[in-house]
Amino acid sequence: MKDLATAALVAPNATVKLSQLKPDETFGLSEKDVRARTEKQLERLAELATQLAANGKRSLLVVVQGMDGSGKDSVVKHCLGAISPMQVRIAAFKAPTSTELAHDFLWRIHAALPERGQIGIFNRSHYEDVLVVRVEGYAPADLIERRYGAINQFEELLVDEGTLIVKFHLHISKEEQAAQLQQRISDPTKNWKFQVGDLDKRKKWDAYAQAYEIVLERTSTDHAPWHCVPCDHRWVRDAIITDVLVATLAGLKMTWPELPPELKNLKIT
Amino acid sequence: MKDLATAALVAPNATVKLSQLKPDETFGLSEKDVRARTEKQLERLAELATQLAANGKRSLLVVVQGMDGSGKDSVVKHCLGAISPMQVRIAAFKAPTSTELAHDFLWRIHAALPERGQIGIFNRSHYEDVLVVRVEGYAPADLIERRYGAINQFEELLVDEGTLIVKFHLHISKEEQAAQLQQRISDPTKNWKFQVGDLDKRKKWDAYAQAYEIVLERTSTDHAPWHCVPCDHRWVRDAIITDVLVATLAGLKMTWPELPPELKNLKIT
Repeated sequence: MKDLATAALVAPNATVKLSQLKPDETFGLSEKDVRARTEKQLERLAELATQLAANGKRSLLVVVQGMDGSGKDSVVKHCLGAISPMQVRIAAFKAPTSTELAHDFLWRIHAALPERGQIGIFNRSHYEDVLVVRVEGYAPADLIERRYGAINQFEELLVDEGTLIVKFHLHISKEEQAAQLQQRISDPTKNWKFQVGDLDKRKKWDAYAQAYEIVLERTSTDHAPWHCVPCDHRWVRDAIITDVLVATLAGLKMTWPELPPELKNLKIT
Repeated sequence: MKDLATAALVAPNATVKLSQLKPDETFGLSEKDVRARTEKQLERLAELATQLAANGKRSLLVVVQGMDGSGKDSVVKHCLGAISPMQVRIAAFKAPTSTELAHDFLWRIHAALPERGQIGIFNRSHYEDVLVVRVEGYAPADLIERRYGAINQFEELLVDEGTLIVKFHLHISKEEQAAQLQQRISDPTKNWKFQVGDLDKRKKWDAYAQAYEIVLERTSTDHAPWHCVPCDHRWVRDAIITDVLVATLAGLKMTWPELPPELKNLKIT
């Protein structure tokens, strides 16, 4: 089967045109085969997460970004819900509080990072500070320009200290967003997810897409790569994300920590 | 089917003798029937958790306590892993840090409580401050005596402010603990869970059991009841805990929040 992890990778310094990347890409794969494989990969992911916890030396930070309706919550549930909750630390970043705004933009991010042994999941992240903040003009332009470099340096520090970082941009079409937002209106069990502000952002679709392109071009690095994930088909999305997570953790070539020899034959009485 | 939630309830002011409660209790039920029912209850629990998040007004705090090897991590995985990770906040309380010890014992607890709309899970909790602290004599006896009242008042405050609280004591036999700890030695994938200190605590089994009895007698209240869960059979354990959680959330009689009339017929373009 095609290497989906590599197919979605944004190479460092690549030029990114989101309009040329198909959100409904299927890589010519069969849905049935891919779903079956993803099930197995999720089991493998759960095992690798337990090995990460068992060793307690490294951590993994998973950044999930995407337009409204791109399925961020769904990714957390379906790709990371397979892992034991004890091994996961989730942070959802909303509009900053007044306390958070009284600090630099990485202050709340730093405090929410996973411990060694844990998988941290950022549902939105520090990238909002160069996305919504850029499009809506919430900070001076020259300050925003400097943030891309600050982010790369911050992430490099984390990697130097033992954290692995993978970043996912959930790439949907404008039509798919309409379908998702419409569902929040028509399905009574989803009404609570609908926010009028999402319509304002939808009107600025192109500006947001451009802000994402700049993020992908300037902050996909060897140490913290972005993956641009076609999300119109959920089964493609889940397969790519699961593959990237498994490949990333498998790359650590972890073994199970062993008991010291004097304990190996201990009989509990 | 028998009302398992009520069967495991510790009535307020009851006298508790753990030695008279069978850890291998099955209530005469069939494993196959119970497992099938638990699967359905877990789906219902996930739906109720989403309604809790949708309304964003109330929260649920789930306290999980029990001897080493009683299956606290397993409960979190199997009973609460069914809920979307975005709707759960987990806190595992280990031996307090020097910063935590520089505060009152409820300081770190308060900071870890779930937000409105969330389900908070405490894997160990403030009860360690009247369990391990009592048995090992880590604090003056008269201070520990006052903590039971302090805990009841603290929990009453939380309930007054909109949090539901349920507490589970995972009740296992000393033989079952031996089997669980032995498995951590013999199974290479579980070696990392073995701690020599667990053996010291095992030697004080009776003292710990007595400390648990005092907790159950003094802190099972109408507003924050304890359930004593027989855990030698995991399927019994999971059925009771799932039933209690479903009954507690169902008691809120939640509905789905509706959109304001002017948005109900909105067409996304």
